[in-house]
Amino acid sequence: MKKLINKPEDVVKEELEGMALAYPDIVKVHFDPDFVYRADAPVKGKVAIVSGGGSGHEPMHGGLVGVGMLDAACPGQVFTSPTPDQMLEATKMVDGGAGVLHIVKNYTGDVMNFEMAADMARGEGIQVASILIDDDAAVKDSLYTAGRRGVGTTVLAEKICGGAAEKGYDLQKLADLCRKVNINGRSMGMALTSCTVPMAGKPTFDLPEDEMEIGIGIHGEPGRKRMKLKTADEITEMMALAIIEDPAYTRTVREWDEGKGEWVDVDLADPPFKAGDKVLAFVNSMGGTPAIELPIVYRKLHEICEKKGLKIVRNLMGPIITSLEMQGCSITLLKMDDELIEMWDAPVKTIGMRWGM
Amino acid sequence: MKKLINKPEDVVKEELEGMALAYPDIVKVHFDPDFVYRADAPVKGKVAIVSGGGSGHEPMHGGLVGVGMLDAACPGQVFTSPTPDQMLEATKMVDGGAGVLHIVKNYTGDVMNFEMAADMARGEGIQVASILIDDDAAVKDSLYTAGRRGVGTTVLAEKICGGAAEKGYDLQKLADLCRKVNINGRSMGMALTSCTVPMAGKPTFDLPEDEMEIGIGIHGEPGRKRMKLKTADEITEMMALAIIEDPAYTRTVREWDEGKGEWVDVDLADPPFKAGDKVLAFVNSMGGTPAIELPIVYRKLHEICEKKGLKIVRNLMGPIITSLEMQGCSITLLKMDDELIEMWDAPVKTIGMRWGM
Repeated sequence: MKKLINKPEDVVKEELEGMALAYPDIVKVHFDPDFVYRADAPVKGKVAIVSGGGSGHEPMHGGLVGVGMLDAACPGQVFTSPTPDQMLEATKMVDGGAGVLHIVKNYTGDVMNFEMAADMARGEGIQVASILIDDDAAVKDSLYTAGRRGVGTTVLAEKICGGAAEKGYDLQKLADLCRKVNINGRSMGMALTSCTVPMAGKPTFDLPEDEMEIGIGIHGEPGRKRMKLKTADEITEMMALAIIEDPAYTRTVREWDEGKGEWVDVDLADPPFKAGDKVLAFVNSMGGTPAIELPIVYRKLHEICEKKGLKIVRNLMGPIITSLEMQGCSITLLKMDDELIEMWDAPVKTIGMRWGM
Repeated sequence: MKKLINKPEDVVKEELEGMALAYPDIVKVHFDPDFVYRADAPVKGKVAIVSGGGSGHEPMHGGLVGVGMLDAACPGQVFTSPTPDQMLEATKMVDGGAGVLHIVKNYTGDVMNFEMAADMARGEGIQVASILIDDDAAVKDSLYTAGRRGVGTTVLAEKICGGAAEKGYDLQKLADLCRKVNINGRSMGMALTSCTVPMAGKPTFDLPEDEMEIGIGIHGEPGRKRMKLKTADEITEMMALAIIEDPAYTRTVREWDEGKGEWVDVDLADPPFKAGDKVLAFVNSMGGTPAIELPIVYRKLHEICEKKGLKIVRNLMGPIITSLEMQGCSITLLKMDDELIEMWDAPVKTIGMRWGM
């Protein structure tokens, strides 16, 4: 295992120490339980947004904390869910009196622990709404998931809701917006190589020198298909068409119903993309892919979207939701409307994404 | 070779096509000869800044074009110098009537071609100053270099001079500032793994599973020493001390003398770092190193700087001057003063670095 680390068990702790030293104007770090939070938290009267999940996907989530995005992020160990006490303490730290939105990627551990943390926070008098992100069109269920995995759309939801929270959205309106982003977004990833979790010390999976995996998860979970290596254009086409031609995806998710005071089942249906839609196109590096390759993928994606009548009105390109040193990429398309565009364009100042300030 | 590319010979062209499609608000791309330039170029009355070099180091240089940084960048093929005609056409395109500064990394091909391009541009009535960056403290001479290689300080010079050009520095003052940045900066890199140039199709060098190379160049040029893999703390200490304890480095470089109307030899001496200095600390990923590992390096670098009496007043962390998918990192320290801090803080809007706008 070749990594710039000291002891494998210290990776997350030392990463957080480095972040605290490097970016004191943007974030503070709380240790034991571990979470990253806005340097100016709590922001009185603003709905706070908390997310989290296993580490190894940097800059998501700790690098997405700051003005205009997350108020706090709870990092688990690499590829391991954070614990309810991290989420609870983060929620209490950033609550500015207007409630807290939990943005939760659909992985069983994250879902369970965020639900527990939300219940505990409510027990302490904090209003909490929870919205699940389950945008990965690759597979119906996965290794750590009932239903689709939460991937690229998570980052877009964090940015868009972060912008809306700054503009004064109340908790209910912000939860509705977050749900809309999830419903409007779909993703697909692929890997050329595996990654190595520090504590494991060896690659998560084996992928022969002439093969790749389409539809892979961000922890190396099995995708749709292994196949011989193809060109960037062919790979982009496979992923983009799978996303664009994905039919309406209907399922039931659990959300907190503030009126009833209980968790309820909510039916969601993601509408398929159709000609005339405006979209945000997000080309993401899995971490180890060189920056020179992403525009090659974007170029083909742009061509496919044009052919399908989808107009790319905004984009994002880079290593934003990564899988350690995995080589590969993912594509996310998010159907945009005026509200989403306004919130996307709003100023943001985080370690990983920054504009307008 | 596992890459998200089509034909190896089309990598740079297709990368540029993708950049043009994705970032029309920031850059335009000129093909044949190839260069990336500011969307609003030429900026009348402002000194323009042009850099360039082999591709494969993205976001440097094309991703560093925009308001507050470069006016144009000339990409060669991967790890190959751009040609004089690229540099000449870029220089003509962005000249706003106040002259053009060429920021040149010290590699023989780059130096020779930029000198030729500058001479041709002068022949067409454009005032051109050229400043060489040779900040790599690892080795005295290298594979493609007489003298030290130009690495991380290049990016810092581009940002600082870009800010100063926006503030109205004239060509002479800007060249002096750029020379000061070069004199004040020192770097050192290391690799855990090789990279693979697309046209070569196989790794540039072999590095056994338990070894690393300290002082490596950004094209995989030999460094100071190969050794058994060490911890992040040990690696950081080796590089940081090599930089901090590097003695005054004196050498002669060629610069254009506008008064004499000829290229002249200029003697430069980089002063060593000393306790009490303010520094900018730049922890750079070679491309394939996961984001989670950089703060671990930064944390140790911060500790070493403190011990040595160097105060980190600004920092930069991320994959900025990369070597394709190489795993590893480099450290750059730049001695700062009030002028450098002011220009570093100035607004910038490029693909790879952005703040204040």
